[in-house]
Amino acid sequence: MTNIKKDEKVNMKMLARMLNLSTATISKALRDSYEISAETKARVLEAATKLNYIPNPFASSLRNNRSKTIAIVLPEIADSFFSQAINGIETVVNEHQYHALIYLSHENYARELLMFSELNSGRVDGVLLSLSCETRDTAHISKVLNAGLPVVLFDRVCDDIPVVKIKTDDYESAYKATTHLLEQGCTAISLITIAGYPSMLEARASGYRQALLDHQVEPDSGNVVICANKYTAETTVSLKDHFQKYKPDGIVITVEHLATSAYLACKELQLSIPADMKMICFTNQLNAEILNPALSTIQQPAFEMGRQAAIALFRQLTGKETELTEMVLPSVLIARASTAR
Amino acid sequence: MTNIKKDEKVNMKMLARMLNLSTATISKALRDSYEISAETKARVLEAATKLNYIPNPFASSLRNNRSKTIAIVLPEIADSFFSQAINGIETVVNEHQYHALIYLSHENYARELLMFSELNSGRVDGVLLSLSCETRDTAHISKVLNAGLPVVLFDRVCDDIPVVKIKTDDYESAYKATTHLLEQGCTAISLITIAGYPSMLEARASGYRQALLDHQVEPDSGNVVICANKYTAETTVSLKDHFQKYKPDGIVITVEHLATSAYLACKELQLSIPADMKMICFTNQLNAEILNPALSTIQQPAFEMGRQAAIALFRQLTGKETELTEMVLPSVLIARASTAR
Repeated sequence: MTNIKKDEKVNMKMLARMLNLSTATISKALRDSYEISAETKARVLEAATKLNYIPNPFASSLRNNRSKTIAIVLPEIADSFFSQAINGIETVVNEHQYHALIYLSHENYARELLMFSELNSGRVDGVLLSLSCETRDTAHISKVLNAGLPVVLFDRVCDDIPVVKIKTDDYESAYKATTHLLEQGCTAISLITIAGYPSMLEARASGYRQALLDHQVEPDSGNVVICANKYTAETTVSLKDHFQKYKPDGIVITVEHLATSAYLACKELQLSIPADMKMICFTNQLNAEILNPALSTIQQPAFEMGRQAAIALFRQLTGKETELTEMVLPSVLIARASTAR
Repeated sequence: MTNIKKDEKVNMKMLARMLNLSTATISKALRDSYEISAETKARVLEAATKLNYIPNPFASSLRNNRSKTIAIVLPEIADSFFSQAINGIETVVNEHQYHALIYLSHENYARELLMFSELNSGRVDGVLLSLSCETRDTAHISKVLNAGLPVVLFDRVCDDIPVVKIKTDDYESAYKATTHLLEQGCTAISLITIAGYPSMLEARASGYRQALLDHQVEPDSGNVVICANKYTAETTVSLKDHFQKYKPDGIVITVEHLATSAYLACKELQLSIPADMKMICFTNQLNAEILNPALSTIQQPAFEMGRQAAIALFRQLTGKETELTEMVLPSVLIARASTAR
């Protein structure tokens, strides 16, 4: 213990270094976690006591009483997917007499970082996370995990973090959607999408491409339109441009708000749906059925994905073992007038 | 100071009683608020020191550093109004380098109470509140106010709490909507609404009734349909019943999700909109324009209401004086195909 300077404030990192353990182990030992052996706990406590280690009072006051709160970190809430997922999450949260705080990153990586820096302060016991479209570096998530806070990813996930992931079958659904358009007679199918979310949107783009290839259609990058990731009048303009230039007769839309722009673009160009243009969209919105015409959709199991993500998190909070690392819940294709022959 | 028993733990209430001040004053004095005179602060600190008063460490650690966080307490988020209001709120929150946590009451009074009990613990500096439809008693809000936490009400407000309120012109908008239907030739107009929210929904119902009276139509309570306050298939059934029994040729819909049910009810009864039934709805949804047919709407200034509510809250947080007690932002009637002659 000679490597501790006198003035240096003792923290978990130092305890970890001294005892040759991870900070997560130190943190869990100090919280008396079931995951840590009695022997290790004794070693950690002895060292902490000797060094007069004072845990962060804010964090520890909550850890002892437990905050009885989880964080739901979302990229946005205008999308019907997230409002349904939240309802699924909250059925489980209520059962455990917890409550949930919603943090919105607004698709902004810097905001997501800021929020995560606060999660560390102990105000929540666990985190359900759907990433912002800008997030590439995941060090902020690792940091929270290392501090002993459980995290479960859902829908907008990444591959490089060792946590439970609840997803839907994005590749298969896009494959089905594209095949459906081909079967309904489309010969030039465009993909209308946004940037970001590699795990989700690349799977959808791959499913789209593979369905074309399997039907002897060569995918053309000109048929992929990347739009803004929020509703804006400019999207309608760029879709009109694309429709005039590439003359697709079918489109697969990967994000809810783009359907509104696609309908408006067709209306302005006097393209009739489905006669001139068939369309299918990944969306859970209630109004798909009463649009002009009714919209064919890939409907995601939003409520169930939220529920399963919360169940996985509470298994960890209540100290239950789990073998679960990933769950893929299937989406459903609902054919309506917008893809009728 | 003889009225303090030895074993009794000293708290703010006792300090207040002893010094004949309110707990809010004690709380503000201990936080060094600009609202309290230097003399009062000195008296409070002296008494607190003498009595060895230890402030709640959790609350005070946050109050000293400030949590830099506000709470947005909402009844639900599936409605487009709230997602737009949140965006308005967050423009202001970001400017102040704060962030916002969203608490959902799910229209449940007991949940709202639970959330408010936690706000008192110091994890936020202020509260933006839209009430649940069940909330009648407002003691939980008074308690938070008395603890020195500023609250601003928006949209779903109540009259008995002395805080800033940001509203829209519900009475006038319902009056305009009903008059619009009368002018488009309707003779039997029903009001499709939900229970709760006295300040908002009673204003809308009064506007509807007064417009009828001013056009020599006697309002009939049979023409008012109270539906469930979330989307459910049963609503479509009860609307079909009502349409068949009362044969309205026009409806004013007070809540977004009821429009979906009304469209479906018309579709199932083969009533053509607008030939057999004209309808107008209070909603901010993007898709109003692409529905079958396009829906006439009362569009609320959701973004601006959120922004103004946040501005009012930050005036209080930054110690600025304000004369504002209530702001009424007008809604806009947008006539589309669903009310065409």
